[in-house]
Amino acid sequence: MSEDFRILLETFANPSPNRDYEIKITCPEFTSVCPKTGQPDFGTLIITYYPGQKCVELKSLKLYLQRFRNEGIFYEAVTNRILEDLVAMIEPRQMVLEALFTPRGGISSTITAKYHAESSS
Amino acid sequence: MSEDFRILLETFANPSPNRDYEIKITCPEFTSVCPKTGQPDFGTLIITYYPGQKCVELKSLKLYLQRFRNEGIFYEAVTNRILEDLVAMIEPRQMVLEALFTPRGGISSTITAKYHAESSS
Amino acid sequence: MSEDFRILLETFANPSPNRDYEIKITCPEFTSVCPKTGQPDFGTLIITYYPGQKCVELKSLKLYLQRFRNEGIFYEAVTNRILEDLVAMIEPRQMVLEALFTPRGGISSTITAKYHAESSS
Amino acid sequence: MSEDFRILLETFANPSPNRDYEIKITCPEFTSVCPKTGQPDFGTLIITYYPGQKCVELKSLKLYLQRFRNEGIFYEAVTNRILEDLVAMIEPRQMVLEALFTPRGGISSTITAKYHAESSS
Amino acid sequence: MSEDFRILLETFANPSPNRDYEIKITCPEFTSVCPKTGQPDFGTLIITYYPGQKCVELKSLKLYLQRFRNEGIFYEAVTNRILEDLVAMIEPRQMVLEALFTPRGGISSTITAKYHAESSS
Amino acid sequence: MSEDFRILLETFANPSPNRDYEIKITCPEFTSVCPKTGQPDFGTLIITYYPGQKCVELKSLKLYLQRFRNEGIFYEAVTNRILEDLVAMIEPRQMVLEALFTPRGGISSTITAKYHAESSS
Amino acid sequence: MSEDFRILLETFANPSPNRDYEIKITCPEFTSVCPKTGQPDFGTLIITYYPGQKCVELKSLKLYLQRFRNEGIFYEAVTNRILEDLVAMIEPRQMVLEALFTPRGGISSTITAKYHAESSS
Amino acid sequence: MSEDFRILLETFANPSPNRDYEIKITCPEFTSVCPKTGQPDFGTLIITYYPGQKCVELKSLKLYLQRFRNEGIFYEAVTNRILEDLVAMIEPRQMVLEALFTPRGGISSTITAKYHAESSS
Amino acid sequence: MSEDFRILLETFANPSPNRDYEIKITCPEFTSVCPKTGQPDFGTLIITYYPGQKCVELKSLKLYLQRFRNEGIFYEAVTNRILEDLVAMIEPRQMVLEALFTPRGGISSTITAKYHAESSS
Amino acid sequence: MSEDFRILLETFANPSPNRDYEIKITCPEFTSVCPKTGQPDFGTLIITYYPGQKCVELKSLKLYLQRFRNEGIFYEAVTNRILEDLVAMIEPRQMVLEALFTPRGGISSTITAKYHAESSS
Repeated sequence: MSEDFRILLETFANPSPNRDYEIKITCPEFTSVCPKTGQPDFGTLIITYYPGQKCVELKSLKLYLQRFRNEGIFYEAVTNRILEDLVAMIEPRQMVLEALFTPRGGISSTITAKYHAESSS
Repeated sequence: MSEDFRILLETFANPSPNRDYEIKITCPEFTSVCPKTGQPDFGTLIITYYPGQKCVELKSLKLYLQRFRNEGIFYEAVTNRILEDLVAMIEPRQMVLEALFTPRGGISSTITAKYHAESSS
Repeated sequence: MSEDFRILLETFANPSPNRDYEIKITCPEFTSVCPKTGQPDFGTLIITYYPGQKCVELKSLKLYLQRFRNEGIFYEAVTNRILEDLVAMIEPRQMVLEALFTPRGGISSTITAKYHAESSS
Repeated sequence: MSEDFRILLETFANPSPNRDYEIKITCPEFTSVCPKTGQPDFGTLIITYYPGQKCVELKSLKLYLQRFRNEGIFYEAVTNRILEDLVAMIEPRQMVLEALFTPRGGISSTITAKYHAESSS
Repeated sequence: MSEDFRILLETFANPSPNRDYEIKITCPEFTSVCPKTGQPDFGTLIITYYPGQKCVELKSLKLYLQRFRNEGIFYEAVTNRILEDLVAMIEPRQMVLEALFTPRGGISSTITAKYHAESSS
Repeated sequence: MSEDFRILLETFANPSPNRDYEIKITCPEFTSVCPKTGQPDFGTLIITYYPGQKCVELKSLKLYLQRFRNEGIFYEAVTNRILEDLVAMIEPRQMVLEALFTPRGGISSTITAKYHAESSS
Repeated sequence: MSEDFRILLETFANPSPNRDYEIKITCPEFTSVCPKTGQPDFGTLIITYYPGQKCVELKSLKLYLQRFRNEGIFYEAVTNRILEDLVAMIEPRQMVLEALFTPRGGISSTITAKYHAESSS
Repeated sequence: MSEDFRILLETFANPSPNRDYEIKITCPEFTSVCPKTGQPDFGTLIITYYPGQKCVELKSLKLYLQRFRNEGIFYEAVTNRILEDLVAMIEPRQMVLEALFTPRGGISSTITAKYHAESSS
Repeated sequence: MSEDFRILLETFANPSPNRDYEIKITCPEFTSVCPKTGQPDFGTLIITYYPGQKCVELKSLKLYLQRFRNEGIFYEAVTNRILEDLVAMIEPRQMVLEALFTPRGGISSTITAKYHAESSS
Repeated sequence: MSEDFRILLETFANPSPNRDYEIKITCPEFTSVCPKTGQPDFGTLIITYYPGQKCVELKSLKLYLQRFRNEGIFYEAVTNRILEDLVAMIEPRQMVLEALFTPRGGISSTITAKYHAESSS
């Protein structure tokens, strides 16, 4: 199994933990490597979440995402893995991760995965 | 009846079968032939699905769609046929197929068909 | 009362009558004549329907719409009349007709009319 | 209190009074005067309504709106006043008036007011 | 704790207090300072509210927002603080504040916070 | 040969005959008929000229262009004919006529013709 | 002949009179009245100039342009008149005035006039 | 060597052979096959020419371009071949052919070739 | 006279001093203060230059531009001052500075100033 | 000095060596590393050239550009190096390389370098 990059993610205390508000973060410079062809993949990640007690620190998020630069991983797997890592580290009320990958062979893909905390419904 | 192209479609195991996530695939280079006029038709197909146990492999999807290049088939028929082929091969929880065809005689058409598995509602 | 153009509309059998799918047809080259001023009106018609047993044939639709070219008729009337003609001839499950007319005197208008079959709700 | 401009609004009989359809009118050339600074204000009005027995005649609407050209009136007041005048004269089932004003001091405003007839809910 | 800027916010009486209408104000020239790096931040604030008895006066809003120009404050904190200040001063039925910040390190953020008065639900 | 529509074109005296300035007129609602297929053609005409002693009156230009509504004439011919008619009637220093026709069979055409008075070079 | 509005135009000393630089001013809220129909006209004025000893003060320019609000004047005449007024008051090295008027009867017009000082060529 | 498709191109007599005017034809539905990979290529062809004695007939141009549908040919070769075929058949004063191909492997290409008759310079 | 900020500008040696190439830098987050009203101004600066022996270091350019944040200075003056500071520090072959300021009172301004070294013409 | 990647570039014989035509290649997925911060840089490269005896093979170009993925190199240096490598390997008549880099610290850069063969002027 591949390395754990979660250690790079830092959080800070939500300044308004009693309000149910939304944070949307757009990262247009994501890149990883296709494990089948060895070719680089490029995409935009859009992370939307309702913070609980913690918010993700943006510079640490950037460094965490950069660790996938030379990692061989499929679209579906990387989307679900990043969602799981973020949920584990910042324990949001809800989170949606959209990953928009650039075209390959004339075909482009968008993967969208969601998390909803038990107690927040 | 026309040839079966389903044999070209390959799948791989969904890496997160327990999560209900969405995959959207945009194919802007679809072309087939109008059975009435013999003229080529051009369109963009947008496939959106929630995978069950299987995901469609993108290169095989491209080869499958290319088989319609010299196939005489109407807009409504090709849209429903591709939806049925994909549903049969990858057994998704849900699938929507939008087919946006370029103008003919100043008129453009979009066909949208949906599939919803019995057990997923 | 003005002439009946419905005779121009041809249909073909819906190739997937058991599936509830959508057909959207965009006609950007509609023109008729204002009965008050005698000036030509221009607009885009967007027809969205869920077919029942029949689909409208696109070339016949084009010829039908061209018959309004020299017809004096108001925006509201032409929109409702085309919806009624199409519903009468193709008996859809549902149909929406949006008519977007170009500006006159700095003011532009869009008329949207809907039809819903009794048995389809 | 300012002058009554409603007398300028003319109506015609709805050609399809039994159908519940929508009419959307976009007027990008609205101008009035700020009562505080004396400076002109500019905006776009979007009127969306479901006609009852009457429709508004577009040329009379244009003349009605032009009467605000040298009228000193605030954004919130003019939006509500035009909605009230139109409702009084054409008695629609529903009406929405959006007024999009151009930036002042780097800040732009949109006011949206709605009317819903008692009997139409 | 940082200075209170609420004193700058002026209001005027809602001209249509009985109607439930929406006011949307777009402020594309917001700037504050990152407390960690000392670098300026830039963003667009979109304030959408349903007024109760009071409306916010736009020039006073502009002066209030300009007070953050040299204030060191994080994205999440400034968004929640402005929402709270506006709610306290104008007591709206509802208010939404969207704050769209420009990219830093290739990553852009949007924070959206909402207020809903007890009695208006 | 087809009818002469030039009689419809009216002119007024150029208010600044000594200045060499440009007038650009965009007419997006031009329509004529294809003499081969009998189908309507649609296009946008862009007339750019440097007036001499006369300017074209816009309402008369509109009526002149409307006369082509039911006229059977090819793209290349109608473009050159309108240029010649306008040059004959308003005697400009220079004139360019661009005619942008909408797609037919997936192919769109733009015809551009120019006139330059002998004495103005 | 109509009133002289030039008295409203104020200037300030060019801070870099020895450099040949360009100033472009865009005024999207110009309005005057058509002398034939009495209807308001709307347009955007774009003034581009190379200052000599003087620059135009923007607030005075705004007040000057507002004086045309209820002035009956044709497109060609107002464009040339504003160019002449500005040239007379600020004596630029060069100036171009583009006036883009909104559509009337489906037809829109742009007038472009230029000034070039004798000594600046 | 591959088949000659020029026989499909039809011409008609230029209606204004004495005027030097431009014809621009945009064909967004061009497709051929990559001779190396066997995969289809897609592109838009833009043909701009100044006619001599002949103009190309658009329907014949469409049929000519369709003949490349199953032809294996590289970008550079097909661009130059189509230019040569058109020049040979319609003998224009000048012609430019731009071919914009869709991305492959994240890289897109545009080829632009020009022809200028000896006698027209 | 105002403070000298040039000391903040750092340079590095041009890696290709023998090639005449262009560097274009877009800074959309420029802000200063209007000396007349005390209100903040906002704009985008576009710096295009052909380097001689030196290139400007981007982080130092950012810090230099931030020094205008609370500086009272007019549009024309700040544009010419920044051009002069950059020319003095990096001695380019050519430089163009475009400054696009956001609208004030409905009017927006762009100032463009150029520098051309004696020896480079 | 850094490694030589030129060995990866392959060429093929220009199919039309006697015609002076243009090839434009757009590569939106370029990435390298900033040697100062260690952070990844992202950009779009646009290569425009007039081939001599050779054209660059696109797949080899993609592999060549991918070699910069983990290479520490500044914007100005990488732009000039790629231009030099391409000129050395394909010996074009002319070549222009535009490199558009994404924003860093709110500032974006475009570098444009040109090559012109002695004998082609």
